[in-house]
Amino acid sequence: MSHVETESENAEASARIQAAVVHKRAGLPLAGPDIHAVIDDFVHGRVAEHQMAAWLATVACRGLDMAELVALTEAYVAGGERLRLEQIGRLVLDKHSTGGVGDKLSLIVVPIVAACDVAVVKMSGRGLGHAGGTVDKLESIPGLRLDLAPDEIYPLVRRVGMTIVSQSAALAPGDKATYALRDVTGTVESIPLIAASVISKKVAVGAHGLVLDVKTGAGALITDHAMAALLAETMLQLAEHFGLRCRGVLSDMNQPLGRAVGNALEVEEALAVLRGEQVPDVREASLILARLMLQSADPALTDADADARAAKAIESGAAYERFLTWVSAQGGDARLLEQRTLLPKSQHVLPITADRSGWVLAVDPRDVGMAAVHVKAGRLSHNAPLDHCSGVLVARRLGDRVEAGETLAELHYNEGDAALAARLLSRAFVVGDERPAPQPVIHRVFATLAP
Amino acid sequence: MSHVETESENAEASARIQAAVVHKRAGLPLAGPDIHAVIDDFVHGRVAEHQMAAWLATVACRGLDMAELVALTEAYVAGGERLRLEQIGRLVLDKHSTGGVGDKLSLIVVPIVAACDVAVVKMSGRGLGHAGGTVDKLESIPGLRLDLAPDEIYPLVRRVGMTIVSQSAALAPGDKATYALRDVTGTVESIPLIAASVISKKVAVGAHGLVLDVKTGAGALITDHAMAALLAETMLQLAEHFGLRCRGVLSDMNQPLGRAVGNALEVEEALAVLRGEQVPDVREASLILARLMLQSADPALTDADADARAAKAIESGAAYERFLTWVSAQGGDARLLEQRTLLPKSQHVLPITADRSGWVLAVDPRDVGMAAVHVKAGRLSHNAPLDHCSGVLVARRLGDRVEAGETLAELHYNEGDAALAARLLSRAFVVGDERPAPQPVIHRVFATLAP
Repeated sequence: MSHVETESENAEASARIQAAVVHKRAGLPLAGPDIHAVIDDFVHGRVAEHQMAAWLATVACRGLDMAELVALTEAYVAGGERLRLEQIGRLVLDKHSTGGVGDKLSLIVVPIVAACDVAVVKMSGRGLGHAGGTVDKLESIPGLRLDLAPDEIYPLVRRVGMTIVSQSAALAPGDKATYALRDVTGTVESIPLIAASVISKKVAVGAHGLVLDVKTGAGALITDHAMAALLAETMLQLAEHFGLRCRGVLSDMNQPLGRAVGNALEVEEALAVLRGEQVPDVREASLILARLMLQSADPALTDADADARAAKAIESGAAYERFLTWVSAQGGDARLLEQRTLLPKSQHVLPITADRSGWVLAVDPRDVGMAAVHVKAGRLSHNAPLDHCSGVLVARRLGDRVEAGETLAELHYNEGDAALAARLLSRAFVVGDERPAPQPVIHRVFATLAP
Repeated sequence: MSHVETESENAEASARIQAAVVHKRAGLPLAGPDIHAVIDDFVHGRVAEHQMAAWLATVACRGLDMAELVALTEAYVAGGERLRLEQIGRLVLDKHSTGGVGDKLSLIVVPIVAACDVAVVKMSGRGLGHAGGTVDKLESIPGLRLDLAPDEIYPLVRRVGMTIVSQSAALAPGDKATYALRDVTGTVESIPLIAASVISKKVAVGAHGLVLDVKTGAGALITDHAMAALLAETMLQLAEHFGLRCRGVLSDMNQPLGRAVGNALEVEEALAVLRGEQVPDVREASLILARLMLQSADPALTDADADARAAKAIESGAAYERFLTWVSAQGGDARLLEQRTLLPKSQHVLPITADRSGWVLAVDPRDVGMAAVHVKAGRLSHNAPLDHCSGVLVARRLGDRVEAGETLAELHYNEGDAALAARLLSRAFVVGDERPAPQPVIHRVFATLAP
């Protein structure tokens, strides 16, 4: 294409995105082709980052209706890689969590469901800020390969019934391009933009069904309860539009999930739950998610039957065995996981103690998550290296009794700013005189009635 | 400052503007220091264009209250040049128009008011898109210097009682930096952003009083009548907060103002009005604006007395003489203006005729303005060169009777795409069977009661 043609195309694209900003700001819906054009223009460099930022900020303010959301999701997917899960030859499910502190549920739920003979393909991401990422956690297992090509995934899932891999960068190029911009322009926490971003990647993966874990509370992407419920409903509707069978939960992120926060620490906790240990909240949340996944595969399955199958997968050791088999299949050293002492440990353990007796009224998940970040269990900027051994073990949870001098949490670390991390950890705990009301782990289940 | 300090400052600024985007999107007011920090960070390159674009788009969606508007206006002015009009030693007024097609009112009103012994300092801009700019119009006068330094302005106004100069780039640096970004991100047409932008420059000029001409209708910056009224009220309140005595009008821009559109053509029309010719709408609008300016200087002046003074300034020739004196004082060739045939003329004149008889129901000002742009009387991109002779003479106005074959308008041109301009001009005119209701020139006067 000649320079002149390019220039005239860019001028048209520039006029088009500006008109879309003005139109959307006036509260008017954008036509599908206009949304496609905006994303396509940005992906191909015909509009500038500041123009796309203005569009995203305007959409974040004014919202998108379902027709616009469908168009944006399609536009994100357009021109990108798509998996061909039909090559697996059986029904395949997907799971997504909006993320939080100590959320290792995928490591537990996926092998449970696979052990119940329902295949799962899960693409995961890395952590940023206070929230961890499944890929970072799994990378604490020596040898485990997570960057599998699509052609490696199909035979592996046929054989093992599950996979967890890192998200392909070629999936949903429109989402990839805009996500990086949202990340630096204060437009991450937008319900329509989150919904289109998440569901576009699910559409590109192309599973038959999807279970969503939407967190709410102080450590969640969307902290407000009702807004998080709106996000869940929006994502479910959007995914159903694309033919995915959907269920979901609104789950609590007002404190870290379980005791472990940090990569190897969380893998250990997940293995403990798979071995049948009663880790508070983690087992309950895992069983509910497993129930919804089993029901997505078989909508006629009752709650009681689904729960019985999931519990049996743990109690029989089948889920644990499935996890080890999967680790081996992707090159990981499953023996290290079985011989628990061989998992990497941090050199230092610093206990954080209560300075008074009472009831634990709050365990701020952002403070705990940021404490972990400051000892390199997480990162503040993309691609920053991690210490996979470090993190936090939370010893007291919301509603627990504690006596002065007892341990509230342990900071596990090798490097980083342990003093700052310790201060954040101390601040995270509020101890008071009145016993607080118990908090549910799952606030709401978004179910679909049996047909 | 070290590289590390700069990096840490930039990270802080980046976090700050993102927090402001999230806060404002939630509908919460921004604190004054936070607004100052955002603008200061952008002016000093500590935040990126895409971050500023997201902030501007969010403000355009959510609006600003008066305290935020005051803070934004102060932030725009901060660190910039300010005139010291007290050096003129008398009361000085300022005038601002939100711009339109054929708006040559400054060229008429300023000399009328100066001829009534009230000093005026007016800084003007260039045109972009369908709307013209006063500086472009005045540059059709050979020799006239418009880029005067502040120290040239004070003695000149003491001597001549008026000046019109091009806007100093050093005035309101925050506005200058953000305006360029708004211009390409669809965030120009925002009431709070327009108000802060306009008033920041008025505050930097620092006149005692200000008369605002806010246009409404198809060719206006804000087309909607009620929204344009809101803009007028917002700017008046904001300017009054900074101690300027303010009055204003909401005036019609549903058709070009007067007959001439184009630089030398508009200067000629302004001179005709100053010589006492009854150019429809232009004389009426000029006299109302002159009345408001005279009342800003002397709030006890009645409407009748103010109108009589303004009319006398025209009828006596004093306003016309004042214009010529001023042109000479800034280096322009006033003789050329007196010998009307010496003003530059275009080589070609193409009449646009009516293809049916009837009443003129519409003369779309954007189409007329864009016709002028396509023969280089205006520009689509900053700094594009102009043909000062070209433009449009509108022969029939809204509500006029026209017979088939009669001239609706003349296209005056030397170069450009005359065929496209002619098509736009034809399209601008709608001729129908029913005589339309007459349209007012001034929809509303925003007056202040005499003290």
